Amino acid sequence: MSQIVTAAVIIIGNEILSGRVQDENLPFLARALNEAGVRLREARVVPDQEAEIVRAVNELRRRHDYVFTTGGIGPTHDDITADSVAAAFGVPIDYHPEAVALLKGRFRQTGVAVNDARMRMARVPEGGTLIENPISSAPGFRLENVFVLAGVPVVMRAMFESLRHQLDGGEPVRSLAISVHLSEGAMAAGLGALQLRYPEVDMGSYPFYRGGRYGTSIVCRATDDEQLRQAAVELRQLMTSLGGTPVDETTDPA
Amino acid sequence: MSQIVTAAVIIIGNEILSGRVQDENLPFLARALNEAGVRLREARVVPDQEAEIVRAVNELRRRHDYVFTTGGIGPTHDDITADSVAAAFGVPIDYHPEAVALLKGRFRQTGVAVNDARMRMARVPEGGTLIENPISSAPGFRLENVFVLAGVPVVMRAMFESLRHQLDGGEPVRSLAISVHLSEGAMAAGLGALQLRYPEVDMGSYPFYRGGRYGTSIVCRATDDEQLRQAAVELRQLMTSLGGTPVDETTDPA
Repeated sequence: MSQIVTAAVIIIGNEILSGRVQDENLPFLARALNEAGVRLREARVVPDQEAEIVRAVNELRRRHDYVFTTGGIGPTHDDITADSVAAAFGVPIDYHPEAVALLKGRFRQTGVAVNDARMRMARVPEGGTLIENPISSAPGFRLENVFVLAGVPVVMRAMFESLRHQLDGGEPVRSLAISVHLSEGAMAAGLGALQLRYPEVDMGSYPFYRGGRYGTSIVCRATDDEQLRQAAVELRQLMTSLGGTPVDETTDPA
Repeated sequence: MSQIVTAAVIIIGNEILSGRVQDENLPFLARALNEAGVRLREARVVPDQEAEIVRAVNELRRRHDYVFTTGGIGPTHDDITADSVAAAFGVPIDYHPEAVALLKGRFRQTGVAVNDARMRMARVPEGGTLIENPISSAPGFRLENVFVLAGVPVVMRAMFESLRHQLDGGEPVRSLAISVHLSEGAMAAGLGALQLRYPEVDMGSYPFYRGGRYGTSIVCRATDDEQLRQAAVELRQLMTSLGGTPVDETTDPA
């Protein structure tokens, strides 16, 4: 058996739950973590409320190797992620000297006035280490297995690049997708039998409608290349036997 | 105090967690629920694994007035939502006579062969009532406060329209957004003080970058129209006092 490394993502923000803003961070993190050999097993969207953030952080940090939060680390009253993470770990929070220096340097350079609200962005729970923000300086932080990132997508992505080398991924998951103009219902019995014969290959079935025709994409994912290749051979045979013409999807199916 | 009605959404599907597919259902449900006076308080994305679905359903159905699941109700082996919801409630699952009739009628009409896999879509946990699917017939179902919907967005939306009249919303939340070319850090102190004076108005601060200029949108949400109006007057005064020109956002901020 290969080592499985898992992660969870917590999206913090009322604006996602009200439908005002569509989250862009989960799709990025899902792909980036899979590329790093880390399997994203759960994601949650929670409101800007300390009790909700504390509960999600504590449930998920115990259950997964890594937890990533996005959002709520700006200067305004609704930015409560750092305090909530401190509360979740039961540790105090204070100004981090390195973060203070980063922010003051940035404000001097850009001519922005230092004020209490802006300096709140330098507060980090005890034991936290900084995650670099190459875009706007205000850092994220890591506390044990929890990574606290910005909500603004361009900043979040830059922070993820800064921390990527810290992730200890397991064996990467390889995947392939084969599509065919057959319905899910026509293939279901054969596909189910195939899945039983290849328990280590995860097979997902996704109906589509393209160019006026219905069809199904089957996505196979596994850590074992040989198992994956053999399952794909049998899957193409199944599709052909049902009168379909299997097509390997050329884009990376992730 | 007004009656608050809350909901949670559970997005079921490995394809979202792997980054292969970007979820479109959460943004729709967030807006549609808010319009119905129901506040979406939490969303989770979970894999196609019974234990994970059972845990999410049982945690959230006890905590919220309504729970909506999307995904996993098709004919293939990875469609395990109906069985998982039955397991969560501890009830048996069987063919629902009305669903069987609907599917057989549809298959006869469209010339599709009846087979075991396709008929799996007629299985409903004991006590469940059907949710109409005007697109492709295979129904969703409601069990107590849990609504089980399709994952394909066009089908999910049609099912939601079918069930919308069953929702007993609380007082609707009204909202407005005011944007200004000031930074969050410049407004944070004044905004925090304003929030303290209007505890019943939820104020969210969202930085933006548009047309080469940075700025901030403040979204205010409340059930009390008069409180909302007064808070907006003071918010515009705050922005003006800081040298900004407040602009009412004309699109519905939700």
